[in-house]
Amino acid sequence: MFFSSGKQQVYQLFFIQIVLIIVMGALMTYGPEANVNLLKNRTGEHGRKHIKKPDTNPLLVYPMYQDVHVMIWIGFGFLMTFLRRYGQSAVGLTFLLGAILVQVAIICEGVMNIQKDNKSYLSLRSLLSADVAVATPLISMGALLGKTTYMQLVFMGIVELIMFTVNKYVGEHLLMTVDAGDSMFVHTFGAYFGLAISFVFGMKEKRKEHHLEGPSYNSDIFAMIGTIFLWLFWPSFNSAALEGDDQQRAIINTLLSISASCVIAFATSALVSKDSKFNMVHIQNSTLAGGVAIGTAAGMMCQPVGTLIVGALAGLLSVLGYKYITPLIQKHLKIHDTCGVHNLHGMPGILGGIFGALMAALATEASYDYSLYEIFPARAPNSETKLAEMRDNYGISAGLNRTAGQQAAYQLLALVITLGIAIVSGLITGLIMRVLICGSISEEQKFDDEAHWELEEESLQGSKIKESNSCSNDQLPMGHM
Amino acid sequence: MFFSSGKQQVYQLFFIQIVLIIVMGALMTYGPEANVNLLKNRTGEHGRKHIKKPDTNPLLVYPMYQDVHVMIWIGFGFLMTFLRRYGQSAVGLTFLLGAILVQVAIICEGVMNIQKDNKSYLSLRSLLSADVAVATPLISMGALLGKTTYMQLVFMGIVELIMFTVNKYVGEHLLMTVDAGDSMFVHTFGAYFGLAISFVFGMKEKRKEHHLEGPSYNSDIFAMIGTIFLWLFWPSFNSAALEGDDQQRAIINTLLSISASCVIAFATSALVSKDSKFNMVHIQNSTLAGGVAIGTAAGMMCQPVGTLIVGALAGLLSVLGYKYITPLIQKHLKIHDTCGVHNLHGMPGILGGIFGALMAALATEASYDYSLYEIFPARAPNSETKLAEMRDNYGISAGLNRTAGQQAAYQLLALVITLGIAIVSGLITGLIMRVLICGSISEEQKFDDEAHWELEEESLQGSKIKESNSCSNDQLPMGHM
Amino acid sequence: MFFSSGKQQVYQLFFIQIVLIIVMGALMTYGPEANVNLLKNRTGEHGRKHIKKPDTNPLLVYPMYQDVHVMIWIGFGFLMTFLRRYGQSAVGLTFLLGAILVQVAIICEGVMNIQKDNKSYLSLRSLLSADVAVATPLISMGALLGKTTYMQLVFMGIVELIMFTVNKYVGEHLLMTVDAGDSMFVHTFGAYFGLAISFVFGMKEKRKEHHLEGPSYNSDIFAMIGTIFLWLFWPSFNSAALEGDDQQRAIINTLLSISASCVIAFATSALVSKDSKFNMVHIQNSTLAGGVAIGTAAGMMCQPVGTLIVGALAGLLSVLGYKYITPLIQKHLKIHDTCGVHNLHGMPGILGGIFGALMAALATEASYDYSLYEIFPARAPNSETKLAEMRDNYGISAGLNRTAGQQAAYQLLALVITLGIAIVSGLITGLIMRVLICGSISEEQKFDDEAHWELEEESLQGSKIKESNSCSNDQLPMGHM
Repeated sequence: MFFSSGKQQVYQLFFIQIVLIIVMGALMTYGPEANVNLLKNRTGEHGRKHIKKPDTNPLLVYPMYQDVHVMIWIGFGFLMTFLRRYGQSAVGLTFLLGAILVQVAIICEGVMNIQKDNKSYLSLRSLLSADVAVATPLISMGALLGKTTYMQLVFMGIVELIMFTVNKYVGEHLLMTVDAGDSMFVHTFGAYFGLAISFVFGMKEKRKEHHLEGPSYNSDIFAMIGTIFLWLFWPSFNSAALEGDDQQRAIINTLLSISASCVIAFATSALVSKDSKFNMVHIQNSTLAGGVAIGTAAGMMCQPVGTLIVGALAGLLSVLGYKYITPLIQKHLKIHDTCGVHNLHGMPGILGGIFGALMAALATEASYDYSLYEIFPARAPNSETKLAEMRDNYGISAGLNRTAGQQAAYQLLALVITLGIAIVSGLITGLIMRVLICGSISEEQKFDDEAHWELEEESLQGSKIKESNSCSNDQLPMGHM
Repeated sequence: MFFSSGKQQVYQLFFIQIVLIIVMGALMTYGPEANVNLLKNRTGEHGRKHIKKPDTNPLLVYPMYQDVHVMIWIGFGFLMTFLRRYGQSAVGLTFLLGAILVQVAIICEGVMNIQKDNKSYLSLRSLLSADVAVATPLISMGALLGKTTYMQLVFMGIVELIMFTVNKYVGEHLLMTVDAGDSMFVHTFGAYFGLAISFVFGMKEKRKEHHLEGPSYNSDIFAMIGTIFLWLFWPSFNSAALEGDDQQRAIINTLLSISASCVIAFATSALVSKDSKFNMVHIQNSTLAGGVAIGTAAGMMCQPVGTLIVGALAGLLSVLGYKYITPLIQKHLKIHDTCGVHNLHGMPGILGGIFGALMAALATEASYDYSLYEIFPARAPNSETKLAEMRDNYGISAGLNRTAGQQAAYQLLALVITLGIAIVSGLITGLIMRVLICGSISEEQKFDDEAHWELEEESLQGSKIKESNSCSNDQLPMGHM
Repeated sequence: MFFSSGKQQVYQLFFIQIVLIIVMGALMTYGPEANVNLLKNRTGEHGRKHIKKPDTNPLLVYPMYQDVHVMIWIGFGFLMTFLRRYGQSAVGLTFLLGAILVQVAIICEGVMNIQKDNKSYLSLRSLLSADVAVATPLISMGALLGKTTYMQLVFMGIVELIMFTVNKYVGEHLLMTVDAGDSMFVHTFGAYFGLAISFVFGMKEKRKEHHLEGPSYNSDIFAMIGTIFLWLFWPSFNSAALEGDDQQRAIINTLLSISASCVIAFATSALVSKDSKFNMVHIQNSTLAGGVAIGTAAGMMCQPVGTLIVGALAGLLSVLGYKYITPLIQKHLKIHDTCGVHNLHGMPGILGGIFGALMAALATEASYDYSLYEIFPARAPNSETKLAEMRDNYGISAGLNRTAGQQAAYQLLALVITLGIAIVSGLITGLIMRVLICGSISEEQKFDDEAHWELEEESLQGSKIKESNSCSNDQLPMGHM
């Protein structure tokens, strides 16, 4: 086995950034909106009209991009600060990982979109896609939080983004399925990829309670910063890639779904907890399940009642998962899931994929009008006669003439393929992470910021005193508050 | 009396969400911007022009909506974390209450706007209105913080939103008054509704200092997260519902007013405190009073000097309120006001209503041009001859031909009616809350997260030690830091 | 010497706000976008077309303005909460200082832009400029954090904004140089102005370690709130003043540069720290250096590879600065730099200025097309024949016909002048601050919130116990966690 020392990990980190610079230099350039030369060429023909349409002013998507940006770094980063002695690592490693992976994601997308001049184009849209992609490995990180070195996470993230890109290409381009809010491609994929790694990590060791694996009073409040920013900006996450009426629906649907999941998560939490009190773990996570579950169908005509129901179900499922399923998985499958990503992203993601397939099965031209073919391009007619008017008026392209049922079947197929790719590639990644190159964390270092951070004498004393047997022994925990 | 147990409250919570789903299903559907079928019908006639106007791209309001969204959940939620042992409840109950009430507010507005097809339309604008409405019960919650069960707050919020809707309908539609930033309809209403409930709660019990009713070092910093996000996004709150030059003025006015109130709040705080130091309670709250006070007049031609003066007065009034008026009210009226909403929302709200009436009295066509009739629709001429040109060029509708003085009188009338409805309905709501169905909080449970949250052993020790008499007794408070 | 008492400082604060109201009243009014009368006049001629262009809808800049707004108060405010016992002052004094200085900055800009009617116009653009300007004194505050009274900071801020305005006028209007993201005018200026004051402060006293000058576990996490919001919204800071393709490039460039600086700051931090761990001070600050360093060139055609390299260099330089240069400066020049602004703003700002000059030297019409003359107005031709087509099609105005080399030389000149004005005016300001009118902080009061805040008994106990010699002595630091 080749465990790398701390110094080696540092060199690896420098090396990765240098490689990213070289690859980015070879591959990427500014896209038309950021390059007058390209813009002039494009507008010379038919592009000008497109550019002038007020809806496509590239700045209109910028606020949504920044909302997603906040979700990734503040949302994920602070959500994971709930551990009493791992807050700096939660927010710090999210920061580092995000900064590396956003570059990796830009390159992955760039590779899929190489232009005639052998370059790929950077635009606000590609930055947005990259942010969304980065959410995937950060979800996986939630399953592993506190149990890895930073280089293990970086390695995992790079591999995962490659597999994510492959899976998304299969789902979006080959199968022509829809996943506006990425219930399948981001949430389901990220959760099961991370759980598969956790399975590999758990195979050998004997699991026991770790004294640092719990919150403190203040760490629970820090975590709420993450929760609430995620909850607030989720409509942006689910709608940023859409346009027109689809986008408006996605905003409305996500708000309703995530509101219902919040209420039901509170209610279910009190139902399953002793003395009918709320449990912070549920509130920090399950309140968000409605955003995950409405993802695939976000742009569809779910109607308010449909979106509220799916949100409520997701909140219920998620809390029940924390209460009953996570302990089972840990006991029988030896899968330890630090943040419970199975309950926030895994199951609600699957629910979202299935709900999306259901809505696809119900979609008719009567209810969607031409918007049907904007949402489901594969359902557009392929015969010139039927297409002509819609193409001229609304810019609809020829499709595959799929029926509603066919589209629904493809949606389910994409979900199954996502699960398959996530689990298999996660297992392999986990095996490599265990034996190779990126170091590892010992049992005592787990869930402890000391593994990553040069802490001040002063801020360490809390944990030092832990080991002492002084008269003030019973106050130890205060050091973590 | 029918005090409900914890379990019963849980069932009530499930029940409410189920009712919301049913009512929402029966009443609400997507509005034209989110529904191509409706959009096509509307644009078939004269709507198309309207939709195409770049100013009315529905996405342009989205960033302001998200700012308001952040104010409601992060702003109010964290502002109320200042209590040393009630931070999880402050942010958690704001979260729950907001998620329920945003649905209630959508329904309330929906009921007022039923269309020909017996449905009400959802749009970004209705989500925005709902967020603004939700601020009202959250203000009332500030007066009651730490002294109620969550179901008492939910019950209060639902009743309050109904009365809020009635009052706003009277003010906006019957009296045709203006309240862009809702100084009257949200701030004044929410404050006096909450204070009326607190009056009812305080009638029987003998008030004494509670050992948990104070901040800790860190809770005061958490609260500043709320304060500053509120302060930053207040221009969005006051301007989101406006358009064109009114909106630009509202942004500028609010920024200036809230800046002046911030400076004067700091200065006044140091003036009335010992050793000329600042007091965190004042800084967390009174710095925001300028945003409340400019609300009604936000879109009017106050000029920078006018808006700075009203902001400065609001900051002064608010700090003096904390220092001198709150203790008086508590002593003589037995009204306990946990967050001091009377000083942040009550008095500055009244100031805002009066300032708005003053500005309305001063408004002339010379200074506003046609914009006068956009801001004060009731002042528009009702004779066809005078109206014709303005209608064609700027879309002004026929009004009531009110004079400036009449408009000002109506503004004051709306303020008085708001106070009346808030106080009377608050008293009745308070009486119902005391005797009925939603449980209650005992004296020992007050201001304590243990009443609502399943706290970890570890994070509880701080308060447990409180009761012990060990040698380290003098360090107890650290547990809260 | 005229040390003022606390009471006198309070009166000064009131006095300043009153003066601001009077000056604002005399000088400022609403600009055309917020005033229909002005708007009609302007659109009567050729303005209407301008106003109708969707790109110039004033609301499009609002979200970026709010991002910058968040950076100033949440970003700077929380970044400086890292000290264990100065968090309330960090966030509170940023709040106060910002609220005063945003008004001062509006007036400074107003004075430079007086219109024919002897008034200056307020608009969203002027609010945005004011926010950017306010960043300058807040950077200087970083060098002095914990060592001044609030009135010393206010006095410094007002003087600094005046000098900032002079320097920016010289750089932008006289020298016609470019500094889109203000690497020179804000970051370099603010850092060296603050360091010059710190030099004056340090001349007399003998420096020794202060027991409160360090972080606590939670204060380090609070600071990360500031860091991450700054990191996220930096693309808005660097691009908000631009338009069209330049703006798109500025967004992309800033994201790439700041991502690279984040990764390299982590790597370098682990490289120079013992046991290859990360150091929170580096992570809180140096991760942002890429945003500073790309500032001047943000809108230029740096290409992804160029922007990544400059970001990586900035991250490297910044961490090495913290590790090796700050101790040297403190030892030999007696300059104490609490937040290390020399490493985050000073050196990366100079790097940004030089990189901007380099990119200016490389700029050709071949790569920029007409956009060259939008970015570098001085390079536009001054002969009518060459200008005609570009003016008609793209609105390019006549310039000075500068060559690329000339433009680069002017850029370097602007950097040198910025350094000169900052240092000289900083030294003079520091001398005045030491002898005059604004009070001072004693050695024991340094880095302690007690100097400014009326702290509750309870939250003070942590520090009180510090002085006791009880059996629980070894737990003292917990009070700060």
